[in-house]
Amino acid sequence: MVSSLRYDALQKRWVIIATERQHRPQDFGAGQSITVSREHCPFCAGREQQTPPEIAAIRPLHSEPDTPGWRVRVIENKYPALRISNAVWELGAEGFYETIPGYGAHEVIIEGPDHDKSFIDLPSDLAFDILSMYRERLNVHMDDLRLKYTLIFKNHGATAGASLLHPHSQIIATPVTPRTIRMELMSTLKHFAETNRCMICDMVQKERDEGERIIYDDGTIVAFANYAARFPYELFIAPARHETFYNRENDHTLHCLVNCLKDVLGRLRTLLSDPPYNYIMHSGPNPNAEPIFPGFWKTLEQDYHWHIEIIPRLVKTAGFEWGSGLHINIVQPEQAARFLREVEP
Amino acid sequence: MVSSLRYDALQKRWVIIATERQHRPQDFGAGQSITVSREHCPFCAGREQQTPPEIAAIRPLHSEPDTPGWRVRVIENKYPALRISNAVWELGAEGFYETIPGYGAHEVIIEGPDHDKSFIDLPSDLAFDILSMYRERLNVHMDDLRLKYTLIFKNHGATAGASLLHPHSQIIATPVTPRTIRMELMSTLKHFAETNRCMICDMVQKERDEGERIIYDDGTIVAFANYAARFPYELFIAPARHETFYNRENDHTLHCLVNCLKDVLGRLRTLLSDPPYNYIMHSGPNPNAEPIFPGFWKTLEQDYHWHIEIIPRLVKTAGFEWGSGLHINIVQPEQAARFLREVEP
Repeated sequence: MVSSLRYDALQKRWVIIATERQHRPQDFGAGQSITVSREHCPFCAGREQQTPPEIAAIRPLHSEPDTPGWRVRVIENKYPALRISNAVWELGAEGFYETIPGYGAHEVIIEGPDHDKSFIDLPSDLAFDILSMYRERLNVHMDDLRLKYTLIFKNHGATAGASLLHPHSQIIATPVTPRTIRMELMSTLKHFAETNRCMICDMVQKERDEGERIIYDDGTIVAFANYAARFPYELFIAPARHETFYNRENDHTLHCLVNCLKDVLGRLRTLLSDPPYNYIMHSGPNPNAEPIFPGFWKTLEQDYHWHIEIIPRLVKTAGFEWGSGLHINIVQPEQAARFLREVEP
Repeated sequence: MVSSLRYDALQKRWVIIATERQHRPQDFGAGQSITVSREHCPFCAGREQQTPPEIAAIRPLHSEPDTPGWRVRVIENKYPALRISNAVWELGAEGFYETIPGYGAHEVIIEGPDHDKSFIDLPSDLAFDILSMYRERLNVHMDDLRLKYTLIFKNHGATAGASLLHPHSQIIATPVTPRTIRMELMSTLKHFAETNRCMICDMVQKERDEGERIIYDDGTIVAFANYAARFPYELFIAPARHETFYNRENDHTLHCLVNCLKDVLGRLRTLLSDPPYNYIMHSGPNPNAEPIFPGFWKTLEQDYHWHIEIIPRLVKTAGFEWGSGLHINIVQPEQAARFLREVEP
């Protein structure tokens, strides 16, 4: 069955209805933990034929796709939420019940051939390759004028939604701008209109001035505990210098980001005993995309500033949070930063 | 430590920083399952002294508070996220980092003296008492002009965030309007301005016309699978006749709501083997509240329509959803409705 996107006009959000995997009512509860051992892991080197075909890779010159020797490998998700082949390009006409076909991309970035070497333990040059592949995929998706947004994220640990242990990240590119990003774009646009300054530049500057929430700062990349963090030990990573698009960063900045991620993820691992976590990259939306809906503005250079959210998954999310969007955080961000500064990375 | 509310200007959301319980880094992972047995349950009849003092109750005339005999009992949460005593009434002045004291209420409604009789199994008159207590608490909170919003919700099962098995709901009343509610208010206000009709009246009418997502309809209360549901088997319950405020409903409507909730919760229990779930009541915001921020409008009768969201917690929420606000739902709402209509309530 072809997936679709539906719009909830009441809560101003899209949802992807993806029924690629048939889920009968009795299927829930099973299959939600990580069960694949190294012996059967389809992401390990030598088992390239067990995954969907390679879309991109960093591998020796003249080596064949879907053969060993790669350092980073990108494949389509086995159960993609969206597909490039769902390219019927028309809006549904269900009044305020709107739907569009599930056009988009859902990719997996396999972070090296090693089954259990996490980003923190990788040599810096391989870690750099991963971040460089993020940049390449964003560039590729920006050539498709129908893709409004490309979100790169990672689920580490079963509680955080990972279904395989082998380190990997994912990419979902959508024909709509997700709500969280749209909210941020509205805020940063308004802030610029009022102050002639980037809101996230202002945030980073304020954090550096105050210092009490800073975890890491090498002059290029800054990591701090969010002032209004939703989750205990939630972190915010951004470049100190203004840049809207992650994929326009140069190699030097990416090398600094490697060091920063290794440092802060290492501190989280030490302090919280290898907690499950998600990280999410918020980069500027596709500047080449055609507006689907009238009134959708083009993003300008000044309007946004890429950043990464890291969310350790330490607590359960209950009815209050889902029903209100208002989170209760039981750890003060300043305290979280203090603990993280004190441990070894 | 006094709790506080902080504003995230980037994502336009408030967060409650509640450090009532000291959480050291090593504390996470423990204490998140339901471990209290009937022998030690503080919510059972006869153990009234083990809970914070009674705020309200339905109990025999002339019986003493905090003694047995009650049918429904309301207490302050043992670890309240907000407190009425935090009533310092000024806005923080941290630029776009805004904070206000954690003023508000955090209550628990104990749904009867029985340790393991869920709402579905209660006699209808006791179930009615619970829904009637919801109405009473909303009325009480609306007398406090500093409380903008009162959210009633339930966590059923450990996965859904419940820490005690004994059936109970919770209430959090806040000095700000939570983001989800504000989004809904903006949508319904705009819809009324454009069409002179309530958006949720239109939604309910459309569902009744189409029929394929309807689970329950007795003419007064309608339950259906959301057209753009975020979660598998997510349901939406609303009165057929327009009413902004749950607490203005008469006894007849509440009796119909008892029947509806018993029916649909019963169907979920049968179909999905007693799944963990949350439900959340969205009623109109406090019409008596003073605007804290300039430009905040007063809610008018026409602008909103109370409803209940039911969210079964069958799947894990991963990085993509937290980072984008865009959910992937693996069960088509029409299919969910079909399954639910086919089982015994």
